[in-house]
Amino acid sequence: MTEPEPQDLLGRIYAQWAVEMARYPDMSTELLRIVFDDWQRATAEPEDVTYRHTEFGGVPGIQVRPLGADSSRILLLMHGGGFALGSSASHRKLAGHLAKACGVEAFVADFRLAPEHPYPAAIEDGLSVVDALVARGHAMRDITLAGDSAGGNLVIAMTLRLMAAGRELPRQVLTMSPWLNMENNGATLDTNDATDFLIAKEGLQANIDRYLGGTGVEPTNPFVNPLYADLTGFPRLYITAGDVESLYDDSVRLHALAEKCGVDVTFTVGEGQQHVFPFLAGRHERADQEIAAMAAWYAAGYEA
Amino acid sequence: MTEPEPQDLLGRIYAQWAVEMARYPDMSTELLRIVFDDWQRATAEPEDVTYRHTEFGGVPGIQVRPLGADSSRILLLMHGGGFALGSSASHRKLAGHLAKACGVEAFVADFRLAPEHPYPAAIEDGLSVVDALVARGHAMRDITLAGDSAGGNLVIAMTLRLMAAGRELPRQVLTMSPWLNMENNGATLDTNDATDFLIAKEGLQANIDRYLGGTGVEPTNPFVNPLYADLTGFPRLYITAGDVESLYDDSVRLHALAEKCGVDVTFTVGEGQQHVFPFLAGRHERADQEIAAMAAWYAAGYEA
Repeated sequence: MTEPEPQDLLGRIYAQWAVEMARYPDMSTELLRIVFDDWQRATAEPEDVTYRHTEFGGVPGIQVRPLGADSSRILLLMHGGGFALGSSASHRKLAGHLAKACGVEAFVADFRLAPEHPYPAAIEDGLSVVDALVARGHAMRDITLAGDSAGGNLVIAMTLRLMAAGRELPRQVLTMSPWLNMENNGATLDTNDATDFLIAKEGLQANIDRYLGGTGVEPTNPFVNPLYADLTGFPRLYITAGDVESLYDDSVRLHALAEKCGVDVTFTVGEGQQHVFPFLAGRHERADQEIAAMAAWYAAGYEA
Repeated sequence: MTEPEPQDLLGRIYAQWAVEMARYPDMSTELLRIVFDDWQRATAEPEDVTYRHTEFGGVPGIQVRPLGADSSRILLLMHGGGFALGSSASHRKLAGHLAKACGVEAFVADFRLAPEHPYPAAIEDGLSVVDALVARGHAMRDITLAGDSAGGNLVIAMTLRLMAAGRELPRQVLTMSPWLNMENNGATLDTNDATDFLIAKEGLQANIDRYLGGTGVEPTNPFVNPLYADLTGFPRLYITAGDVESLYDDSVRLHALAEKCGVDVTFTVGEGQQHVFPFLAGRHERADQEIAAMAAWYAAGYEA
C-alpha cells in the first residue's frame, strides 16, 4: 500500500508544515504562529471585499466588508489554530468568501491566545466582541457565530455561556471541522491518521496543554469540551468537515449530540477533504460549493 | 553603550525573524518564505481597497484596486525578499496603501524566485507583466514601476533592459530601500549593523549566491548591480530609505549616480527608520508621511 499524498493546495500546505515541525520539534510558539499564518495561502483573494483593522470590546481584529453587504448583519469568526495559533491574517480571506456569499459583514477576532492566555480568555474575548456588537446597534439575532477547528469549540462554548446566563442567543452557529474532544481520544485520530496531512494526536495534546494547563479545568468540562454539553435549546447549528480528517469523529459526535438534544442541525461532509477545507475557497470546486452551502443555510435561518 | 532595541513593530518583527534564523541557521527555503510572508504583519489593512488574484503575461500576482481608482494607470510592484523570498501576500497591504494614495491600481507580481530561478528570471517576468499591461491597453507612460529592497534592484534593471532595447519607458520608477550592491561591500553594512534589525552581510551574500549562483554573471554587471549602470536618460526616480539601515549606502550611491547622470531624482530619508519602513503604513506616522510623499511625487510626474 502506498502512502496517501496531498491532492490539493491545502493538503500540500499541511504536509509542508508537518515536515518543518518534524524537523524542528522545539519550534518556538512565535515561529509556530508565523507558520500557521501561512494558512492564508490556501485561499484566493475574494473579489469586491474591503477590510479594516479595528476592535470591538477591546478585542482587535479585521472587519470584513463585502461591497454592498447588509451591514446590520454580522458574522463573528473565531479562528482556528488550537487556541494558540492562527489570526485574523490567516483567516481574512476565508471570512471574506463566507461574508460575501452571505451578503453580510464579518469580524475576525484576534482573541487572546494560549498558552499566555489559557481558558477561558478566548471565550471571554469572543463574548466581549458580541457585547460590543450589540452595543453598536446589532440585534443579537443578527449576529451569527462562526468558527473553524478550535474556533468551532469556542463559538459553541460562547453560546453555552450565553445560555447559562439566560441571555438572548445569536441566530445561528456555524462550525467548520470543529475541534471539541479535549480527552484526545476520537476514533478517527487513528483511523484517519494517514490521510490527514496536518493533525496528529501529539500536536493536539500540546494545544490541550496550552489551553488547559494550570487552569484545573477537566477535559470533560462542557465549556472546553462541548461533546459533554446539554445542547437543548441551542440555536440552529451547521457542521461541515472532511471525512478523511483526524478530527472527523468530533463532527460526527457533535451532530449526533445535537440531534439527540433536538437542535436544528445540518451536517455536510466533504468527501476526501482536509481539515477546514473551505480554506480552499476560490481555488477548489468543493470548497466553493461548501461556501455556497453555508451561505444557503445562513439565508434559510432568516426565512424560518 | 547599550545595544539598540527595536522602536517600532517593523523593528520587532525583524528582530524576531533574526532570532529564529539564528536559532535554525539551516532553515529551508520553504520555511524562510513562510517567515518572510510575515512581513505583512507590519502593515495595517488599507480601507476601501479590493483585491483579486490574477495573472498578467503568465505571471501570477494580486491586482490591487482601491475604490474609485483611475484604472487606466497602474503601479507594478516588484516585491523585496532578496530575489528568493517575499510574495504578493507579504506586500499586498503595502501596495494597497501606495495605490490608494496615488489613486490608481497596482499589481504585485509573484515573479519567479531564486535559487530555483536565478537571474534574469525575475526581470523577464517583470517585463512580461509590462508587456501584458500594454497589450491590455495601458499606455507605457501610465505604468509606474515600484520596488522595495531587491524589488528596487529589479525595477531599475527592468528599465535598463527597456532602454537597451530602445523601447518606450515607464513614466517613473519608485524605489524603497533598494538593494543594489551585489559586491556586498557597502559602508553602512558595517556602520549600521547594530541598528538594522534584519539585514546582515552574511544573509545578503546567501541571497546573492541564490540569485547569481551558476549564472556566470559578475556582481558588477549593471543589470544585477545598477550602481554600475549608465543612468543617462533614465525616467524620473524616487528613492526612500532609513538612515539606520545596513543598505542605506545603496540609496546614497544610487542618488549620487542618478544626479551625475542628469536623472530627475528625489531622495527622502527616514531618520531612524528600518528597512522598507513604508511597510508600517497605517501603523506609524513616519510611514504614513512617506506614503503621502510618494503619492505627491507620483502625481507631480503627471503635471510635468
